[in-house]
Amino acid sequence: MPGRVDYAGLLNGDRVAVARAISALENEAVDAEEILRAVFPRTGRGYRVGVTGPPGAGKSTMTNRLARSYRLQGLAVGIIAVDPTSPFSGGALLGDRVRMSEVELDDGVFIRSMASRGSLGGLSRKAVEAADVLDASGKDIIILETVGVGQSELDIADAADTTIVVLVPESGDSIQAMKAGLMEIADFFVLNKSDRAGADQAVLAMQMILHMRNDAGWNPGIIKCIASEGKGIDSVLETISLHRSFLQHDNRLAARRASRMGKRIRQIVAEKLRTEFWDEKRSRLLSSRIGAVIERTLTPYDLARDLIELAQ
Amino acid sequence: MPGRVDYAGLLNGDRVAVARAISALENEAVDAEEILRAVFPRTGRGYRVGVTGPPGAGKSTMTNRLARSYRLQGLAVGIIAVDPTSPFSGGALLGDRVRMSEVELDDGVFIRSMASRGSLGGLSRKAVEAADVLDASGKDIIILETVGVGQSELDIADAADTTIVVLVPESGDSIQAMKAGLMEIADFFVLNKSDRAGADQAVLAMQMILHMRNDAGWNPGIIKCIASEGKGIDSVLETISLHRSFLQHDNRLAARRASRMGKRIRQIVAEKLRTEFWDEKRSRLLSSRIGAVIERTLTPYDLARDLIELAQ
Repeated sequence: MPGRVDYAGLLNGDRVAVARAISALENEAVDAEEILRAVFPRTGRGYRVGVTGPPGAGKSTMTNRLARSYRLQGLAVGIIAVDPTSPFSGGALLGDRVRMSEVELDDGVFIRSMASRGSLGGLSRKAVEAADVLDASGKDIIILETVGVGQSELDIADAADTTIVVLVPESGDSIQAMKAGLMEIADFFVLNKSDRAGADQAVLAMQMILHMRNDAGWNPGIIKCIASEGKGIDSVLETISLHRSFLQHDNRLAARRASRMGKRIRQIVAEKLRTEFWDEKRSRLLSSRIGAVIERTLTPYDLARDLIELAQ
Repeated sequence: MPGRVDYAGLLNGDRVAVARAISALENEAVDAEEILRAVFPRTGRGYRVGVTGPPGAGKSTMTNRLARSYRLQGLAVGIIAVDPTSPFSGGALLGDRVRMSEVELDDGVFIRSMASRGSLGGLSRKAVEAADVLDASGKDIIILETVGVGQSELDIADAADTTIVVLVPESGDSIQAMKAGLMEIADFFVLNKSDRAGADQAVLAMQMILHMRNDAGWNPGIIKCIASEGKGIDSVLETISLHRSFLQHDNRLAARRASRMGKRIRQIVAEKLRTEFWDEKRSRLLSSRIGAVIERTLTPYDLARDLIELAQ
C-alpha cells in the first residue's frame, strides 16, 4: 500500500513525495483528486516543452541533452517520458536507468516514465497531471516526451507551451510526420542525425510542407542537430527561448493555456458524468436489456436513450 | 451536399448507397443516427475479421489476398482500412486505387479507407459503424484493417470476431508487438515475408511470448506466410475458419459480441451525455469562470463540480 503523500515535501521538491504523488495519479488511487487539488494552486510557473516525433528519431537523447543544458543554467528540470507502446511503467526499468545515467543523476532533475499498456487508460490525462505535480514541486522546465503515433500522444505534446517535433533524414519521415498530424502541432522542427544522407532533401521537403502553414507572427523553422554529439542543442534551446518570448507577447501564452484548461475542464466533467451515471440501477438496466440489442429487437441508440431517461 | 441515403439500395448492397451512408457517418452528418438505426436490425450476420500489426508488415497485401480468396468462395467482402496516420480519407486516393486493382474491382468487394487526421475524432467508433453498414448491406466477411500503433487502433481490431496480427521477421518486431499490446488481442499471428532472414528466430521468440498466454481452449498459433506471393494464405483462411468454429461453440461468439455491445452502448451514452451537457448556460459558466482557474483562485475540479450541479 502506498503511504499518504507528504504535501509539504512535494511542494519543496522532495523526490520521494513527488514520485509517490505521481504514482497515486497513475494508479488512480483514492486520493488522486485530493493530490490534484493540493498541487493545482502551485502550478503555472513551470514552462512546459513537448518533444515528439516518430520512433527512433532520437527524442530521448534530445530530451536528455536539453535537460543537461537547462541544469547548467541552474534550472530545475522534470521529465515525463510517455511510451504508449510499452507495457511497463514506473521507475525501475532499463529505459529509466539509461536515462538517469545520461543526464547524470542530479537532484535537480526528476525523470518519470509512463506507459499505457496496462489496464488503466487516460494516459494523456495522467501525463498532464504528472506535469502538474512536477510544476508544483518547483521544476522550472517540464519536458513532456512522447512518441508521435496516435491522437492521445499528440494530445500530450499539445499540452506543452512549446512543442518540438524531432525527425531524421530517412526518406519519407517528413511525409509521415505530416500525415501523422505532427506538422500541425510543431512550434518548430529538429532534424536530428543531420549528418546522415538525405538531410538536405529532408529539410527542403519540410520547408515545402511548412510553406503551407500560416501562423500569425511565428515562423516554425527547422534546426539541424546531432543530438548524440550535442551538436545543434544550443540552437534548439535558443529557439525554445525565442518561442517563449513570442508567446509572452500579446498575451499569447495565457490564451494558449486558457484554451488547454478549457479542454481539460471538459474532460474532468466527462469523467465525473461517466462515473456518476453508471450507478447500480443503470448497470442493471443495461445488463437486462443487452440481450434484446444482441437479438436486434432493440437498437443500442434506444437503449442509450432509456438509460439516460431513467430517473436517478 | 450529400443526398439522402437510399435505404432499400443500401440493404441490397448498392455501392453508391453504401458509400453515401459511410460518408454520412464519417462526417457526422445530421442523419447519422437515423442511418445507424436503419442498418442496425440488419447487422450481426457478417463475420468480422481484424487485421492489424506494425507499419510495413504487409497488412494491406494480406487483406487483399484474403478478400480475393473469399471472393473465389463466392462470399461478399467488405473492407474498412483504417489509417490513423493519414490525413486523407474517402475513396479517391492512390492507396485505394492500388487496393482496388489488386483485388480486381468486383461488385462483391467494397473497400473503404478511413483516416483520423481530420478535425473530427472518434475514428474507432466510425470504423465500427462503417462495418455495420457493410454488414447490413449483405457482406459475408468484413475485414477491419488497421495499423497497430495506439489504443484506438487496438480498439478497432478488438471489434472483430477474429483478430489476426501480422508481423515480419525483422528483429525486435515481435517484441515491439508484445509491447504494443498486440499479443493480447491476437487470436493468431501471421509471420509475413517469412522467407526473410530471421524468420525462424522470430517464430521462436513469438512462441515463447505466446507461452505466457493462457486462453481457455484456444491456442493462438503462428502461421508463416509470404502474402505478396500468395503463400500461406490458405492456412490463414483455414485458421480463421477454425477460430470461427471455436467461437461458435459454447456460445463464445455471442458472449464476445455481447461484451463488445456493452462497451459500445456505454460509448453512445457518454457521447449523448456530453452533447446534452454543454448547453448555452454551462458553456457560459465555463467561459466566465475559466479566468479564475487560470489565476489559480479556483481549481478545475471545483469548477467541474459547479458545472455539474448547475440546474438545467
